[in-house]
Amino acid sequence: MNATVVPQKDSFAIGIDMGGTNTTVGLVNAQGQVVRTTHLKTRHHATADDYLRALAMAVKNTLHGEPISGIGMGAPNANYHTGQIVDAANLPWKGVLPIAEKLSALTGYRVRLTNDANAAAIGEGTFGAAQGLSDYIVVTLGTGLGSGFVANGRLILGHDGLAGELGHMIAVRGGRRCGCGRNGCLETYASATGIVRTAEEWLLARREPSLLHERTAKITAWDIQQAASRGDALALELFEYTGRILGETLADAVAITSPEAIIFYGGLARAGELLLKPVRAHFEQNLLHLYSGKIRLLTSSLPEANAAILGASALAW
Amino acid sequence: MNATVVPQKDSFAIGIDMGGTNTTVGLVNAQGQVVRTTHLKTRHHATADDYLRALAMAVKNTLHGEPISGIGMGAPNANYHTGQIVDAANLPWKGVLPIAEKLSALTGYRVRLTNDANAAAIGEGTFGAAQGLSDYIVVTLGTGLGSGFVANGRLILGHDGLAGELGHMIAVRGGRRCGCGRNGCLETYASATGIVRTAEEWLLARREPSLLHERTAKITAWDIQQAASRGDALALELFEYTGRILGETLADAVAITSPEAIIFYGGLARAGELLLKPVRAHFEQNLLHLYSGKIRLLTSSLPEANAAILGASALAW
Repeated sequence: MNATVVPQKDSFAIGIDMGGTNTTVGLVNAQGQVVRTTHLKTRHHATADDYLRALAMAVKNTLHGEPISGIGMGAPNANYHTGQIVDAANLPWKGVLPIAEKLSALTGYRVRLTNDANAAAIGEGTFGAAQGLSDYIVVTLGTGLGSGFVANGRLILGHDGLAGELGHMIAVRGGRRCGCGRNGCLETYASATGIVRTAEEWLLARREPSLLHERTAKITAWDIQQAASRGDALALELFEYTGRILGETLADAVAITSPEAIIFYGGLARAGELLLKPVRAHFEQNLLHLYSGKIRLLTSSLPEANAAILGASALAW
Repeated sequence: MNATVVPQKDSFAIGIDMGGTNTTVGLVNAQGQVVRTTHLKTRHHATADDYLRALAMAVKNTLHGEPISGIGMGAPNANYHTGQIVDAANLPWKGVLPIAEKLSALTGYRVRLTNDANAAAIGEGTFGAAQGLSDYIVVTLGTGLGSGFVANGRLILGHDGLAGELGHMIAVRGGRRCGCGRNGCLETYASATGIVRTAEEWLLARREPSLLHERTAKITAWDIQQAASRGDALALELFEYTGRILGETLADAVAITSPEAIIFYGGLARAGELLLKPVRAHFEQNLLHLYSGKIRLLTSSLPEANAAILGASALAW
């Protein structure tokens, strides 16, 4: 599908951003404004059906009588062609989940589903940092690492609707165990979860003073960002390490699509230059010379969480 | 541009396949038949201008009075947008070479240029194994490793016309020196040149009996193929090793575009199942489960060298 969508005037749509941890339901108007949102936890449901019932209720609560064109939804491992999620590494429910069909039955609205990162890519193309670009990549750094690749102005969906799995390129051969059952996937290092895994390993093995040693609760990516912005050496090294692995793998990925920009989005991207500076350095250092200095690395300019909601809503128009 | 081109009836075009070692000029009719070819060496010219004069002569010799729509040319590191070749790792002439403009001045015909592997991808889509497919990859295994990625029925050219450099994805971090100045690029292992490098290393280090030890001249990929098809253990192991590295890297690449098929083409692909069997095994073994068993690995069904000539000619229509 096209990465830039033109919404009908005076129309509304529901955009749903389903992440491995949180889900946000947003009502979006044709000007690309998120009018109202409802939040729910993705994980706190024993079955996918329980989750879908809670989600249908959240859609109902988000609408205050506005007529909508339909529901668009971005979700991990979602397939645009089939409307299903199949064996998502970052969801508690395995197997084939016919999300679009079931949510449609529960709400009475037409539901279009795509990969959460693909939704973000459409959001950036329609309303954000990628407006006017025909070739770009959106990378979401949340519980996992998602990606949406746009080439020739169109989202790369792939033959089976499952393209854009940058998070499962092997960054370190024989490396960390991934939820997908393999080892060394990029997302096990470069994601909010990944940087926390690195921090936990290092804090067990290393004794130098760090603000992170003082934490009593489980460390989060936010804690690491806070410590790094106060100049904590270990936290800064965590960003350097994470940025190196991300930069190296991105240097490989761009050799396939030669994009004009890479736009980062999601929890870990909020660290901004703390992350982008090492990513940029290692990216350039590992880049085939043809691409040197040509590819901009940016963080999303859209208000937090909005790219995915806006992009998802665009599926419904 | 579209990966499938419909030629005008009764028209002819010149397609040029420029490789790192050899160049072939072909006259192609609208039925996708190569009517006549002329061959020249790419390397035996001191300057790019000398080469272009020889090439213009070859074009003249290939035409026996047929009227043509123009000249299409596939070449290493060629840029469709600019008509230039810039710093090709596998060519002796560095810097910016304005090939399209100069060849046009020398011949009087309009010249369109693209990456040799992109030309092959259009050839396979228009006349070969990729007919009817919207998402596929063509991998050329010659002096280097070239690639053409097709998504949504269109060639991925990238923002700058330089997409599809699979051969310069890092297959072995810190590995072999590549002509591009970096280390461990896929093409230093998986190409006609790459398998020969591996053979030379192994033959120096290992003493077990092998038909390859009996060669007095410099070993070629063809020699290795011949030895392997006679059951030579070392030669078979060379294919296993080369196939593993290619299979692993392809498993990463398909996570970006999720193609329906990968079509191999060029010198080393002539080894057929000798190469494809290990590639397929390691590819499947390293694949994200979403893609398991879904992606066909094929060798080109077009007569040798024709995919690139046919694809190049399609640029002219």
